[in-house]
Amino acid sequence: MNKESVRVLGIDPGTSVTGWGVVEPAGAAFRCVASGTVGLPGRLQLGERLRRIRAAVEDLCRAHAPIAVALEKAFVARNVQSAFRLGEARGAVLIAAAEAGLPVFEYAPAHVKLTVVGYGRADKQQMVCGVALRLGAPRANQADEADALALALCHLIGARLRVPLHAPARRRGGAIV
Amino acid sequence: MNKESVRVLGIDPGTSVTGWGVVEPAGAAFRCVASGTVGLPGRLQLGERLRRIRAAVEDLCRAHAPIAVALEKAFVARNVQSAFRLGEARGAVLIAAAEAGLPVFEYAPAHVKLTVVGYGRADKQQMVCGVALRLGAPRANQADEADALALALCHLIGARLRVPLHAPARRRGGAIV
Repeated sequence: MNKESVRVLGIDPGTSVTGWGVVEPAGAAFRCVASGTVGLPGRLQLGERLRRIRAAVEDLCRAHAPIAVALEKAFVARNVQSAFRLGEARGAVLIAAAEAGLPVFEYAPAHVKLTVVGYGRADKQQMVCGVALRLGAPRANQADEADALALALCHLIGARLRVPLHAPARRRGGAIV
Repeated sequence: MNKESVRVLGIDPGTSVTGWGVVEPAGAAFRCVASGTVGLPGRLQLGERLRRIRAAVEDLCRAHAPIAVALEKAFVARNVQSAFRLGEARGAVLIAAAEAGLPVFEYAPAHVKLTVVGYGRADKQQMVCGVALRLGAPRANQADEADALALALCHLIGARLRVPLHAPARRRGGAIV
């Protein structure tokens, strides 16, 4: 693994399926390093699911050495119950990132869609296609995986745009956080 | 520590203050083994707060060897934002309990109040006094600590009431979960 790489781990947490994707810059574009979902069989108790999400994120941080974690900003939910469940899954990811000493960046769903596919109200299928196009990679099998890749992409695209404004030219390509 | 003890760890999770209390049966009554709050200074980032909650609960499980964890059932919140925050703190507790291999029992706030002080709409001060009376102990310094003790008490009182209904007499005083 190249220690100079600027990899970002995107996570789309959920207690049924948690999607993840690692993205890094590749010249003027971006490359998918790895992506997938954390399997959380229905028979498992909630605590065990959360434990597995945390363990999976910690393993991913060790395996791919990202410099940051990108998460969806949580401010809407179907109802209070789904907010509790999503909060629990987010907690598992936040604990793993804190254990790994990584900063966490949050992006609103509409901002991710606008940044990655140019349309803030893109649907799931458009996101799957847009992410594959952006990364020059096959389409993700699951929407959660594509959403996770989109979050990592969003952070990297935003960082590339921010560099000329906030940092001297010699720092281009350096740490983005 | 008496390995035969039937201790229950009650937790009132929150990302500002997390209260905890360990309770065990003492003859016909109950005894507070230990209680307190997890300090989460305001300057800490959310991930670090959650990591500290998880670590504190794991330490408590090791130190007091409870046989179960009692939590408040999460079904109401002031708004979706507080549901996310509470969910994250709950996630930290659920992960710690899963790591320790302990079952988690959830109780609705009104059920806890009714069981512990005999009035389902008791206010914070009534709960602090009621818990102190039940445990024959000084009043808890903080409402979160009293709430955590009340949760542990609620589980133990319920278990005592359940035993004659569901188990043969010789199992009285045995495992309650």
